[in-house]
Amino acid sequence: MNYQRFFEEAIAQLHDERRYRVFANLERIVGRFPQAIWRSEGEAREITVWCSNDYLGMGQHPDVISASQNAAGSMGTGAGGTRNISGTNHPLVELEEELADLHSKEAGLVFTSGFVSNEAAISTIGRLLPNCLILSDELNHASMIEGVRRSGAEKKIFRHNDVTHLESLLQQAGKERAKLIVFESVYSMDGDIAPIEKIVELAEKYNAMTYIDEVHAVGMYGARGGGITERDGLAHRIDVIEGTLAKAFGALGGYITGTREVIDAVRSYAPGFIFTTALPPSIAAAATASIRHLKASSVEREGQQRQAQRTKDVLAAADLPVMPSETHIVPLLVGDPELCKMASDRLLAKHNIYIQPINYPTVPRGTERLRITPTPCHDDALIDVLKDALVETWTALGIPFRDVAAPREPARSDRIVPLVVSQAGG
Amino acid sequence: MNYQRFFEEAIAQLHDERRYRVFANLERIVGRFPQAIWRSEGEAREITVWCSNDYLGMGQHPDVISASQNAAGSMGTGAGGTRNISGTNHPLVELEEELADLHSKEAGLVFTSGFVSNEAAISTIGRLLPNCLILSDELNHASMIEGVRRSGAEKKIFRHNDVTHLESLLQQAGKERAKLIVFESVYSMDGDIAPIEKIVELAEKYNAMTYIDEVHAVGMYGARGGGITERDGLAHRIDVIEGTLAKAFGALGGYITGTREVIDAVRSYAPGFIFTTALPPSIAAAATASIRHLKASSVEREGQQRQAQRTKDVLAAADLPVMPSETHIVPLLVGDPELCKMASDRLLAKHNIYIQPINYPTVPRGTERLRITPTPCHDDALIDVLKDALVETWTALGIPFRDVAAPREPARSDRIVPLVVSQAGG
Repeated sequence: MNYQRFFEEAIAQLHDERRYRVFANLERIVGRFPQAIWRSEGEAREITVWCSNDYLGMGQHPDVISASQNAAGSMGTGAGGTRNISGTNHPLVELEEELADLHSKEAGLVFTSGFVSNEAAISTIGRLLPNCLILSDELNHASMIEGVRRSGAEKKIFRHNDVTHLESLLQQAGKERAKLIVFESVYSMDGDIAPIEKIVELAEKYNAMTYIDEVHAVGMYGARGGGITERDGLAHRIDVIEGTLAKAFGALGGYITGTREVIDAVRSYAPGFIFTTALPPSIAAAATASIRHLKASSVEREGQQRQAQRTKDVLAAADLPVMPSETHIVPLLVGDPELCKMASDRLLAKHNIYIQPINYPTVPRGTERLRITPTPCHDDALIDVLKDALVETWTALGIPFRDVAAPREPARSDRIVPLVVSQAGG
Repeated sequence: MNYQRFFEEAIAQLHDERRYRVFANLERIVGRFPQAIWRSEGEAREITVWCSNDYLGMGQHPDVISASQNAAGSMGTGAGGTRNISGTNHPLVELEEELADLHSKEAGLVFTSGFVSNEAAISTIGRLLPNCLILSDELNHASMIEGVRRSGAEKKIFRHNDVTHLESLLQQAGKERAKLIVFESVYSMDGDIAPIEKIVELAEKYNAMTYIDEVHAVGMYGARGGGITERDGLAHRIDVIEGTLAKAFGALGGYITGTREVIDAVRSYAPGFIFTTALPPSIAAAATASIRHLKASSVEREGQQRQAQRTKDVLAAADLPVMPSETHIVPLLVGDPELCKMASDRLLAKHNIYIQPINYPTVPRGTERLRITPTPCHDDALIDVLKDALVETWTALGIPFRDVAAPREPARSDRIVPLVVSQAGG
């Protein structure tokens, strides 16, 4: 038995399917975001990042950086243990209070990543509710799918954002059975928003629990950055709000907020929470500084909305195939995996612009795209440079402009992706 | 349906079983490790931490702190994306090269935690090998158990460190079948060491792959801190060496090292790696600084061994029931969950000494213990203070001293613990 061969074959398969991923080696430059140094084959070049999830550039905010540095300087670099065994550091306790306040919930709980927070929380809640039925949006993130699977509970998938379908499933289940609806507020690959109010109404009508993933919304929507649920005045009608510290807040980690009892139960029963080292004081302090800043300041949110809209307008005016999006996310349709990779490579090599190609299975086949995330730091001049580079690339590679490639609605069956590498966000 | 009730009941059950966990709110003090500020009910007091997994105190090393601060200052606080989508920062690339070198392997891969590294790597390897049989030590950590379960592969549990049992299972499986042996070098609750050489010989004899968890050994054993496999000259005979950055290296995150192809396959196929934000530059830089320091310096390792031995000697001389341990871990038998919690509470309240009680299901019932982790920073005077405090506590609570409570070998059947909260380290 030659073990090595199986790993070689697994890699070869990815090459064959043009799905092999090469990670760009980046060094961001504080004070000059979204600029970064890109290293490749001994060369180092300055480029513009157009696909960061540091959506507001908070990772370079002076208050956030100094909070991180001060915590490392006074308390050290690591937490030194699990939450239970010496790892619960004071900045982490403050962060959890800050998060509960952000979402107007009783309690918060921090995990080492958003992936772990979804997986641990959904699986634990689903397991603690007897005979629970989980109703899950078909485009939920891989981490939520893992959480549903690991709960051991029965699951039903409802069509993306389809409240009629959801209602029929709730009706079938009946009022008496325990039901958990899991969904996202902002779906990050298309930039669309769930019909949260209607879902909440259905949950109330059929007595279901609700769990919402706000990772692509926290910090960016609502008067204090509490996400779409804050913007729409719905936070108090949702049972569990999950979010991340690693995107708009510019740090690392994920979290959930909810009633004291739900949070305490997840804290006490989830292996992915219990058996892992706590986040270090420097990360917790940075996250808290960022949340506090964004609670008080709307400048970043307004700047992001303005520059995202301008990006959409400028690219659309150049007939580039901007896909419809209700949010700060600007997807640009390519519709072919090879062309998508080639476009990304050309933008980097020729134009010093970095936008990662998004191919199957992250998105359905035929909808391969460049996913652009303008931040408040992408100024008008950068948007114009981007537009020119895209037009040059589209022309050189023969990618269809807008009149040819009208946005297509992918067949729903395409959207159910394999288990191993699932959809959205990687 | 009152959902809240189920969570309340889950919490009540833990209280009933005396398993409800209260996290100590700690603020470590750089330059004065192992001292920390403990906050409780509005009070703040200085205490000595005797249960940290920052085993060498590297979290407060000046080089490590300044590496963290400099990276945050120049590159910002977050990574800004998954590894694939703009998150691969230059310090992380350097760290992976450093780790490959540490274990004399071709490649390394960093995860957000040791838990995720085991879960993602074992499940992915097990899935990529056709009809794989996983042979797993019965005392493996919860994260390894999760990895085995999620691989979907058939598993057989071998008795703890029992190579005869392992061999019989290998024999049954035959040479032709794919087999993966997963085990730890240092088991952290008892401080015992696996018979690595014998396991490696069996793996070679029966053509099995080997996966070793060195999280409680890296940085602390071997001339360069490469763990027990380095100390015993066995690293090159193990296929995958897994470790952590969050214990002796004083940072955060987990990792694997192995051949280029194994690492590339896990990198490409593991959802828990793909769909999660990369570690920030500050954490990666801190970890690299720590690894480099410990590659060159043995002062910390020698200090730890000396103080751990002295702790064992001093406590044993006072007839305290020190359990046998081959490593830096000093378990002290209590043998009763209530007494164990009371002892820990009394040490904190009366003696300003913090040692978390370790109860079932982290350890088998009847072997409840205080798990003491002396570091090079716990000087002789602190050890004497600890001894006096323990003797006072043992006497006041009527906990058996050594002549009464000879170390017992727990019944093996006790050691198979429930799925939800599994053994070791939380």
